[in-house]
Amino acid sequence: MLSALELARRLEAGEITVAAVVEQCALAIAAGEPRIGAFATLDLDGTRKAAADAGVLLRRPLAGLPVGVKDIFYTADLPTAYGSAIYAGHRPKADAAAVMAIRRAGGLVLGKTVTTEFAHLRPGKTRNPANPDHTPGGSSSGSAAAVAAGMVPIAIGSQTGGSVIRPAAYCGVAGFKPSYRLIPTVGMKCFSWHLDTVGVFAAGVADVAFATGSLTERDLRVDGKSPVAPRIAVVRSHIWAEATDAMKAAVETAARAAASAGARVSEMALPPIFEEAWRAHPTIQDYEAYRALAFEYDHYRESLGPLLRDLLDAAPAITPEAYDAARRTAMRARRALSAAMGESDAILTPSAPGAAPPSLASTGAAIFNRLWTLMGTPCINVPGLADEQGLPLGVQIVGLFGRDRHALEVGLFLERAITRHARG
Amino acid sequence: MLSALELARRLEAGEITVAAVVEQCALAIAAGEPRIGAFATLDLDGTRKAAADAGVLLRRPLAGLPVGVKDIFYTADLPTAYGSAIYAGHRPKADAAAVMAIRRAGGLVLGKTVTTEFAHLRPGKTRNPANPDHTPGGSSSGSAAAVAAGMVPIAIGSQTGGSVIRPAAYCGVAGFKPSYRLIPTVGMKCFSWHLDTVGVFAAGVADVAFATGSLTERDLRVDGKSPVAPRIAVVRSHIWAEATDAMKAAVETAARAAASAGARVSEMALPPIFEEAWRAHPTIQDYEAYRALAFEYDHYRESLGPLLRDLLDAAPAITPEAYDAARRTAMRARRALSAAMGESDAILTPSAPGAAPPSLASTGAAIFNRLWTLMGTPCINVPGLADEQGLPLGVQIVGLFGRDRHALEVGLFLERAITRHARG
Repeated sequence: MLSALELARRLEAGEITVAAVVEQCALAIAAGEPRIGAFATLDLDGTRKAAADAGVLLRRPLAGLPVGVKDIFYTADLPTAYGSAIYAGHRPKADAAAVMAIRRAGGLVLGKTVTTEFAHLRPGKTRNPANPDHTPGGSSSGSAAAVAAGMVPIAIGSQTGGSVIRPAAYCGVAGFKPSYRLIPTVGMKCFSWHLDTVGVFAAGVADVAFATGSLTERDLRVDGKSPVAPRIAVVRSHIWAEATDAMKAAVETAARAAASAGARVSEMALPPIFEEAWRAHPTIQDYEAYRALAFEYDHYRESLGPLLRDLLDAAPAITPEAYDAARRTAMRARRALSAAMGESDAILTPSAPGAAPPSLASTGAAIFNRLWTLMGTPCINVPGLADEQGLPLGVQIVGLFGRDRHALEVGLFLERAITRHARG
Repeated sequence: MLSALELARRLEAGEITVAAVVEQCALAIAAGEPRIGAFATLDLDGTRKAAADAGVLLRRPLAGLPVGVKDIFYTADLPTAYGSAIYAGHRPKADAAAVMAIRRAGGLVLGKTVTTEFAHLRPGKTRNPANPDHTPGGSSSGSAAAVAAGMVPIAIGSQTGGSVIRPAAYCGVAGFKPSYRLIPTVGMKCFSWHLDTVGVFAAGVADVAFATGSLTERDLRVDGKSPVAPRIAVVRSHIWAEATDAMKAAVETAARAAASAGARVSEMALPPIFEEAWRAHPTIQDYEAYRALAFEYDHYRESLGPLLRDLLDAAPAITPEAYDAARRTAMRARRALSAAMGESDAILTPSAPGAAPPSLASTGAAIFNRLWTLMGTPCINVPGLADEQGLPLGVQIVGLFGRDRHALEVGLFLERAITRHARG
């Protein structure tokens, strides 16, 4: 994998040129893309040309770093198809705000990464770099796989259920879903306006922190620091039984590693309102999807995949009253979270039910993610653990809304503890 | 003006055909449009054709009612130019969610109404139907003017500062800015993602309630009911001195009329947090506009009007810290509002500084609106009063977030009280 931070350091020090960085990505793409299929559209020539002009950008934080953009964000210079045949060749007039944030930060948009259909469940062509017979996860399949395969140091994606944290976990990279709206969704195809959240993929926690700070012009960097030992609450929510034995063991291992590194680790039982909120998530998501995708459903129903069509067929049965009640439940849970966390800095919980399932027909389940998407809290997939077959197992750090840097510090602490634990 | 409720009733009773309703609009357009310029694009032929097919729609709530759509919403079958030469002839691939809500409710999109440039301040061609030398207000200029001139019974618009309530007040129609996100902004050109709110124009308060309930599938209708006499708090905020004498008198008249009709009217002083929030509004708006319109600014700066260009030139000086602080201020004010209102059902305050200014170079000021946009509360322009020249003077009812029907009931109560008062 390519560390965004390390590349930025070497670029700044003059140890490497932007053109060389692009060629490093191009080599990884030439080697891996035929097998992995991370990209919907590649723009190597455009990126090479931009690299040649990139000298002037070198004072910008992402200067010269190639970035993959999930094909759910508008790009004016590249097709934007949302993983749907309905939009084949579609070219919006403007770039999405997140794409412009990449460009303003000096990043080079190297291509559009594969998304599931409208960022829902129908898989694209992407395979898991760790084992191509396994799903890369979704919906940000291509972004996670492209980073895992060293094709780009940074990629952006989006999460409505578990679409950033899950593929990051399955592919073994760091994934960061920041606080709701820290990165604007303007110009991103909407699935659910209460839930859609822009997220970032990179090699490690310090890399996603660097990339997200650069995109949002905020001081989110955690590299070069020694995070204070945090108080971590292990959450085995009502769906703990859905986790595989390997995932349960990974959470225990992560907790032990954190404790060995000095963290105070405790158990935390979530009050019942959080199970209610977990159940409210699909009510909000599906009600809104029926309205956000109204044009596609009413005009192109037959061109939709069966999973999305079934969802939209069923959604009109969700009444506005049920939807409003679900939103109130979410609001109550959001207000309860800070009290529930008490003295803890962050929650430790699975990123996914287990390692990537051995199938390309499904992208796995978002059951360990959707509560946190609804809460709008920062979530980090911390990579570094693996099952007996060597498939990545990701564990998740959840922080408090608006305290993104603090969550990233805990994530970095845990990542280092896991690394030390693996060595030791 | 055309009452949407009355037309719906007559259509349902078979007293009038959909085709006849469309021709009534066409006549008003033929008579008034050359002078008023409410439409960016008209689709009379398409609407006539849709009217011929509309028999099957008659069980839907807006069946057969022509609707004007502000040219800030995506339409796949009509150009969508946002009042900007940059987007001349632009045709999005899909309809906005609000446009689909109109179609699903059986409404007929008769045309796109004039917006100021990107729903900011640069005026379009529209004139005030009450006096064509005066501004119709903005940014939803065409929607307010088209309803005022009887060209459509319903129009939709959007408010980021005061873009629904102000033009409704200036043109003498009912305007409703519902609770934040009651109508989705999906497929609406974004100016500020925390502030942009979809709103509705119609002849009277009962008409906007009917239209908004139809678009949101909620029971918001207030017609046919006798609202209970409410408790109304008159708010003279820190900008009261900016109101003209005529507007001050209009608020007094409205308060007296409400009291005569049985309402309990009191004075309410807003705690200082609300002045802070009022000052926070442009910080949030401008910070987000610089990111939402990043593509347009970075690629077409010279094609922007001077007001928007100046705003975007200055916006990079707003730090993320200042923006985050402004959002926290807004959050504190939102939490304080319910307590501040105490036993009151709604606030009565000016809709605008006065009547429409005698100029076409400016659309007037949003100073009496932006606090309430930031609060996300339902706001209604209640028409019915006028200054000595006969220009409309609108007063504003502000309710509590999520209590839209209650706010509309208060608005209807006040509208009736004003009408009775005017009759003497």
